[in-house]
Amino acid sequence: MNEHFQPVDLSKAYRLVNHGPTVLISARHGDVHNVMTAAWCCGLDFEPPKLTVVIDKIAHTRSLIESTGRFMVQIPTADQLALAQALGTRSMHDIPDKLISAGVKLFEVPGHNLPFVEGCSAWLECRLVPEPHIQEAYDLFVGEVSAAWADDRVFTDGRWHFETADPKWRTIHHVAGGHYYAIGEAMSAG
Amino acid sequence: MNEHFQPVDLSKAYRLVNHGPTVLISARHGDVHNVMTAAWCCGLDFEPPKLTVVIDKIAHTRSLIESTGRFMVQIPTADQLALAQALGTRSMHDIPDKLISAGVKLFEVPGHNLPFVEGCSAWLECRLVPEPHIQEAYDLFVGEVSAAWADDRVFTDGRWHFETADPKWRTIHHVAGGHYYAIGEAMSAG
Repeated sequence: MNEHFQPVDLSKAYRLVNHGPTVLISARHGDVHNVMTAAWCCGLDFEPPKLTVVIDKIAHTRSLIESTGRFMVQIPTADQLALAQALGTRSMHDIPDKLISAGVKLFEVPGHNLPFVEGCSAWLECRLVPEPHIQEAYDLFVGEVSAAWADDRVFTDGRWHFETADPKWRTIHHVAGGHYYAIGEAMSAG
Repeated sequence: MNEHFQPVDLSKAYRLVNHGPTVLISARHGDVHNVMTAAWCCGLDFEPPKLTVVIDKIAHTRSLIESTGRFMVQIPTADQLALAQALGTRSMHDIPDKLISAGVKLFEVPGHNLPFVEGCSAWLECRLVPEPHIQEAYDLFVGEVSAAWADDRVFTDGRWHFETADPKWRTIHHVAGGHYYAIGEAMSAG
């Protein structure tokens, strides 16, 4: 946490994921925490803000979420491309020191007992809205956003500023097999 | 339909939406058809390919989908920004000639009785997987992709080619209030 870590009004939190970036999901149960990459995260509602995320049954992070009903959604940057790729292709089931080998650094936010990933552009704290049928049938999880923050070097006043921020802050959007696109130029309609 | 309209292998269809673009949803019931814009469309599974899309109860297109169990998901281009914005902010309930005033042109594909929007970069034909509880509670619809096509000027051999195609083909990613970002530069991890 540094001076650029700033709260985002919940009414604007949907804007952090609305353009479809690849995200990092983190969770903690007791002394165990983990972080995984997810390309399938999507807005679901505005107020209260909700989102969906698809988390495979083999993901260790899933068991942490199911145990605690809480998780973080974080938006990685172009600077974190290798980190995002590593966290999306290795499982803690196979590589117990996954987080260390991927170079993840975590930080704590007082009053929020969840692992926050350093260097992201935004963070959404989520409460699991239990929907057992779609969790089991589709690996689909509903989260209600209970707090949000962003780095003010790329998101302020409820808006992304990719067009003026350093390109290293751009969101990354996975297509397949480690091939991503960074977000590009701003366009306004009407 | 023109010579650039080419089938996409179903095993690669998820790649059309994986990077989180804003999409156009179309459907037809009898003589009535409609097209709407949706920012909340997301991959759900690989094989068979599935996706989710959030469709508000006030959307006229929703009633067409619920009647027929079939819909199209299309990927609009930067060239279609004004079209996408118009189709996302006007309802056929209020403006019966919405499609004409927005300038939408539709085409037919033999054997597929659905309205295809001209000028898009990709098209996914979907069968609704009925999930009444999440449709009602969250406006969340599950679709299984039964066929897919792309314009070979921007997607061939199972890959997007934004980096070499004309920039007018870039996907658009809505943030809020008519502010979008086009997809940007390619990045590869590892």
